[in-house]
Amino acid sequence: MLSIVRPVLLLDEQRVRQNISRMVNKAKHHGVAFRPHFKTHQSAEIGGWFRDFGVKKITVSSLQMAYYFAESGWKDITIAFPVNVCELNQIQDLASTVHLNLLVSSSEAADILARDIKTDTGIFIEIDTGFKRSGMDVDNIDAIEKILIRIGTNKYLRFEGFLTHTGQTYLAAGPEQIRSISAETYAQLRRLKEAFHSAYPHALISIGDTPGCSVMDDFSGIDEIRPGNFVFYDLMQLQLGACQPDEVAVAMACPVVAVYPERNEMIIYGGAIHFSKEFITIPEKGPVFGMMVYLRKEQFTEPDPDIWISKLSQEHGIVRTVPHQAAHFSVGDILYFMPVHSCLTANLMREYHTLSGEIIQTMNS
Amino acid sequence: MLSIVRPVLLLDEQRVRQNISRMVNKAKHHGVAFRPHFKTHQSAEIGGWFRDFGVKKITVSSLQMAYYFAESGWKDITIAFPVNVCELNQIQDLASTVHLNLLVSSSEAADILARDIKTDTGIFIEIDTGFKRSGMDVDNIDAIEKILIRIGTNKYLRFEGFLTHTGQTYLAAGPEQIRSISAETYAQLRRLKEAFHSAYPHALISIGDTPGCSVMDDFSGIDEIRPGNFVFYDLMQLQLGACQPDEVAVAMACPVVAVYPERNEMIIYGGAIHFSKEFITIPEKGPVFGMMVYLRKEQFTEPDPDIWISKLSQEHGIVRTVPHQAAHFSVGDILYFMPVHSCLTANLMREYHTLSGEIIQTMNS
Repeated sequence: MLSIVRPVLLLDEQRVRQNISRMVNKAKHHGVAFRPHFKTHQSAEIGGWFRDFGVKKITVSSLQMAYYFAESGWKDITIAFPVNVCELNQIQDLASTVHLNLLVSSSEAADILARDIKTDTGIFIEIDTGFKRSGMDVDNIDAIEKILIRIGTNKYLRFEGFLTHTGQTYLAAGPEQIRSISAETYAQLRRLKEAFHSAYPHALISIGDTPGCSVMDDFSGIDEIRPGNFVFYDLMQLQLGACQPDEVAVAMACPVVAVYPERNEMIIYGGAIHFSKEFITIPEKGPVFGMMVYLRKEQFTEPDPDIWISKLSQEHGIVRTVPHQAAHFSVGDILYFMPVHSCLTANLMREYHTLSGEIIQTMNS
Repeated sequence: MLSIVRPVLLLDEQRVRQNISRMVNKAKHHGVAFRPHFKTHQSAEIGGWFRDFGVKKITVSSLQMAYYFAESGWKDITIAFPVNVCELNQIQDLASTVHLNLLVSSSEAADILARDIKTDTGIFIEIDTGFKRSGMDVDNIDAIEKILIRIGTNKYLRFEGFLTHTGQTYLAAGPEQIRSISAETYAQLRRLKEAFHSAYPHALISIGDTPGCSVMDDFSGIDEIRPGNFVFYDLMQLQLGACQPDEVAVAMACPVVAVYPERNEMIIYGGAIHFSKEFITIPEKGPVFGMMVYLRKEQFTEPDPDIWISKLSQEHGIVRTVPHQAAHFSVGDILYFMPVHSCLTANLMREYHTLSGEIIQTMNS
């Protein structure tokens, strides 16, 4: 049974398993490998649910996370973050016990790995298809070729393929635009694969973003998908049109600590150290840090458009309502909110409470 | 010795002690009680440094934090957050072992405490002087009087005074405006005190914000100050004019993982799960999530105006520079950044590394 007295992150296990099942089946249907990103849940126990569906390969975002999941038995891990050369010793220790893939995102990193790595390690070259975060420009074939040659000089480095995170799908106005951005990216990657096909016929193409993996129906030329957020989804994905309300598997439960009906506001115990300060912008509302949902028949409903978090301090959340709504609530009530970005909220909360009251731990518990 | 291979939060112990000393002396000079807010550092060890300066009373923002500091010997604790009535049992357990003060921020909460509390407990009425977060409107004398009467019906409740957080100082354009906002607030509080003086001659006035406590020279009518952030300060306080660069006592140390001179950008290992997504806006730069400083002669310098964090993903920081600057940096370099909001960064990092390489733990370690 649920007994909530302070902010907790609730998790609907059934929805999580459905989200995993749906993506596993989609990958199978399209003949692409599935290497889910575990940075969203960061939990060995939830990792086990993926194993129930036959998943064997994972993606993480840090060496520490790689070690954590290796300890719970994962043997094939890609660290999808530009290799941190300050950790080369610990990286090689791990690479000697699991199949580990690293990301090379610049020629400088390639030079360092080519010089220093003395343990068998997989290498993906990170490709920038327009997000402008990290990676080699997809059109800069010369520079990519030089990196491949450099990697080839070290017998311990095993070139796996090209990897990209199409983060620009997060700027899309809806599913159609996610599709057009993704299709353009996939076409760029196919051209890249083609350019190197004769020299590297086994090079994989690995793509990563949840919006694209959720809405695309054509993965021609793609070999591997690495979505992460889809395991929970959140308000940002819902706003993007990457998921349906009944696919969002987490909600913050927060006690009401003050109600100010004359201001159409109430205060919850639940602030920046619980939700994170990530926000979306909604016309007529401005910045929104979470939207209220209800827990009905042991399921979270879709968001109530009339009740949202308009501001966060360290521990306070200011909940704004349309006129006459706030008066329906009382100090001591527990309210539920769909978080804006479940990865950051989960990272802060460091554990989950299932709807049946079990606690699920994470690497930060 | 410092050996940094991944993001760590560095702390200059000497500056922290100077910040504590300065505020202790200021409180003494003005004859106001000093009850520092410990939500910024959340560390029993740093709490001990306050004790070295004779501090005996503290402020916290949650019951869990109150328990943590009670365990390390603090006996006089105010939870400066609207009382969470869902935790009344645990609150009373703690109130039976330490001098505990709670915040009443609405008549509803007063009714519940008056009905349910059976352990000696101090009560501050939270007053809203214009921040519009939580508390009773400072001009609503009738409603405040009703709360006082209600509290008076329970012999276990001990009325301590009126408490406010003048958060609107964070919107000030500089020290002059912080002073005018603070002076106006203090005048409001003096009128409030006067209104209740005959019935409650011992009621204290407690104020809380770091900008006001840092720049004000006149605390007439104020009995207690509760600043918290001043222990570290940060980029937000520096931008406000609430501190000097050489008073900022923390910096994030982050490895460079990619350099893109052609984009005037580099990528650091250090993202939203390290810094938090709090930002300030700087003309010509847009949102800024941290600014680079240098570590010279074992001290952090002032921020370099030409190198700042322009965007954060979960683990990536995108560092933007003016033209020709990025080329001076290499993969594997360790860079230092003044965080925007040290409270949130410290909460995420969960431990500090002093400049001499010691690790200081927190309640979240």
